[in-house]
Amino acid sequence: MSAPYSVHRRQMELILLAWGMPQQHAERTAEVLSWADLHGVESHGVSMLIEYDMRFRAGRLKMNADYKVVRETPVSILVDGDGGMGHVAYAMAVDAAIAKAKQSGIAVAAVRNSSHFGAVGYFTDLAARAGLIGMGATSAAGIRVAPTGGAEAKLGTDPWSFSAPSADEDPFLLDMATTTVAYGKIRNKMNESQPMPVGWGYDSQGQVSTDPLDVTRRGGFMSPLGGTLEGSSYKGYGLSMMVNILSSCLTGATLITDPQHTKKPKGFDIGHFFLAIDPKLFRGEGEFEADVAALCGALRGTKPAVEGEPVMVAGDPQWKMAEKRMRDGIPIGPGLRAKLLAVTEAASVEWLLDDGSNRAESAGPAPKTANQR
Amino acid sequence: MSAPYSVHRRQMELILLAWGMPQQHAERTAEVLSWADLHGVESHGVSMLIEYDMRFRAGRLKMNADYKVVRETPVSILVDGDGGMGHVAYAMAVDAAIAKAKQSGIAVAAVRNSSHFGAVGYFTDLAARAGLIGMGATSAAGIRVAPTGGAEAKLGTDPWSFSAPSADEDPFLLDMATTTVAYGKIRNKMNESQPMPVGWGYDSQGQVSTDPLDVTRRGGFMSPLGGTLEGSSYKGYGLSMMVNILSSCLTGATLITDPQHTKKPKGFDIGHFFLAIDPKLFRGEGEFEADVAALCGALRGTKPAVEGEPVMVAGDPQWKMAEKRMRDGIPIGPGLRAKLLAVTEAASVEWLLDDGSNRAESAGPAPKTANQR
Repeated sequence: MSAPYSVHRRQMELILLAWGMPQQHAERTAEVLSWADLHGVESHGVSMLIEYDMRFRAGRLKMNADYKVVRETPVSILVDGDGGMGHVAYAMAVDAAIAKAKQSGIAVAAVRNSSHFGAVGYFTDLAARAGLIGMGATSAAGIRVAPTGGAEAKLGTDPWSFSAPSADEDPFLLDMATTTVAYGKIRNKMNESQPMPVGWGYDSQGQVSTDPLDVTRRGGFMSPLGGTLEGSSYKGYGLSMMVNILSSCLTGATLITDPQHTKKPKGFDIGHFFLAIDPKLFRGEGEFEADVAALCGALRGTKPAVEGEPVMVAGDPQWKMAEKRMRDGIPIGPGLRAKLLAVTEAASVEWLLDDGSNRAESAGPAPKTANQR
Repeated sequence: MSAPYSVHRRQMELILLAWGMPQQHAERTAEVLSWADLHGVESHGVSMLIEYDMRFRAGRLKMNADYKVVRETPVSILVDGDGGMGHVAYAMAVDAAIAKAKQSGIAVAAVRNSSHFGAVGYFTDLAARAGLIGMGATSAAGIRVAPTGGAEAKLGTDPWSFSAPSADEDPFLLDMATTTVAYGKIRNKMNESQPMPVGWGYDSQGQVSTDPLDVTRRGGFMSPLGGTLEGSSYKGYGLSMMVNILSSCLTGATLITDPQHTKKPKGFDIGHFFLAIDPKLFRGEGEFEADVAALCGALRGTKPAVEGEPVMVAGDPQWKMAEKRMRDGIPIGPGLRAKLLAVTEAASVEWLLDDGSNRAESAGPAPKTANQR
């Protein structure tokens, strides 16, 4: 079953409103989460509502948070997320940084006392579509990754995102966990009783393992990008540290290595980082965008290793997916549907996502792109 | 054979002076190159003089370049390297960006029309020791890396560096190529007639290969970090694109995908990127540095996978090496010695690097750290 983008988004908005989010915040959060589903980043879309619902009920996620600008200069903004939804706090910081970068040429934003904010790619995409280079990162709540040479989890999936506007229709957009693969890929191997490729994970002693159960059930760990010592996993580990330094040390959020969260006993208190640079600091009108398009075009033109499978550039799979889903709707599998239905019923909200529903009309016209607001 | 740091540095300065570099530029370039050797980054130190010598003789590297500031704002600087040594052009940009970030909180520098600048870690280390977060990157002249899914080299080793000041004695310092390993590691496997680990390289058809000769002799390619499709090499590929976008598209240097260098037929015209952020934009005096030290300390305290081999943090191996070499001198192997001797003789410069030389005294007292100037 699949629903039109606008209905998918409206369903989330209704749930968030029922949870007590103010209208404007519910709209923006639904937009952030719908972007992920629309672009095929399903781990960070509507499926997150199940997790948010649990946190909300456990008193670990405020829906009526008082997001506050704590410090500000012409090139920077620091937002305190007040233990609320990270989407709103980060959007506040990112919107401000984009406006400041348009004025000053560059701006940096930091958010502390926050929580999960969805897919960072939504936010760096905003920067690129505003004509700016974007960098984004967040610290994580889950501790699952062992550093190179370690037999103990100390880090999270610690994502990094980079975007650049292009003379092409869509920007360059990299959005990557600094681990070798997502946890879901390891879980899928377990579910299929298949071995993991070398480098995906370690057993509880920190040794390379190909048994997914070592990671999922027996106290083992995910690996930093690079996978093994020989594969230079210290690079992925170093990038993960970079993400933590920018997202936690710079913002004042709780360090991931302080799992008791001594700073903020309640809530997650993760931190987010964002940076925007205006290429016009260095280039004339359109020159940067033309070069990005030329570079990406040259890479797409690489002789492919497999006939008929052209080389892609970061973002390409997402733009293709978004086009398809804007046309055909956003699918939801039966397992997720059952869980979301329960969340919807618990919130006493109408269920909009079944096929054949003509509620698309009642939710208003579908936007041309997910980025229109 | 090994020579004291100050002699090693002086030897390079003499050669650069003989090539026609002005005193101040020769001093700084020798400092940059000596930093690499002192910290164990031997691929980017004195060994580069052999390559520079060839380029210089071929008229592809100006020693009396007219480095120029092309554009400047309170938060940015653009330097034209005039086809000269990248060390000087980048140092000019980095020094200015550090001073600007101290004033404005953040600054970004770009260099175009430049060449090899040594180890980027020298420059991000400068930022960290000035109390700033540093990011650095450069485009490359050599095209050796195939993008994920490709059977054609389109990218270089495209290094990325990140540094952060710490309450510890030394900063956090990541300096990494965005490839899985350095080319030298693949060459070493060839020299030892050993197979490469899976993920280091591809054959000429873009297929994963464990035969180093496929890369070194038969038209194959180096791999982006991640190594294979299953190892998420698209992440290393994406990071490499980020480096090129920042170093070439943003600066106006020649794109690596334009190997005929249509913009600048002579010289290499590579570009460099640098960014500095003052943590005081967001944190109180010393708070950021204390958090970085706490984070790094927690990682160093990770239970090790191999008893007696403690987990390290990016920079740790380099600081340890610098301490040792500052004490024991900087070694040079017999092969490199012979080549350097030839360069020295061709430049009609005195040879200082043999053991038993007491020229350390004549070169002045050794600095306490490589970063003192």
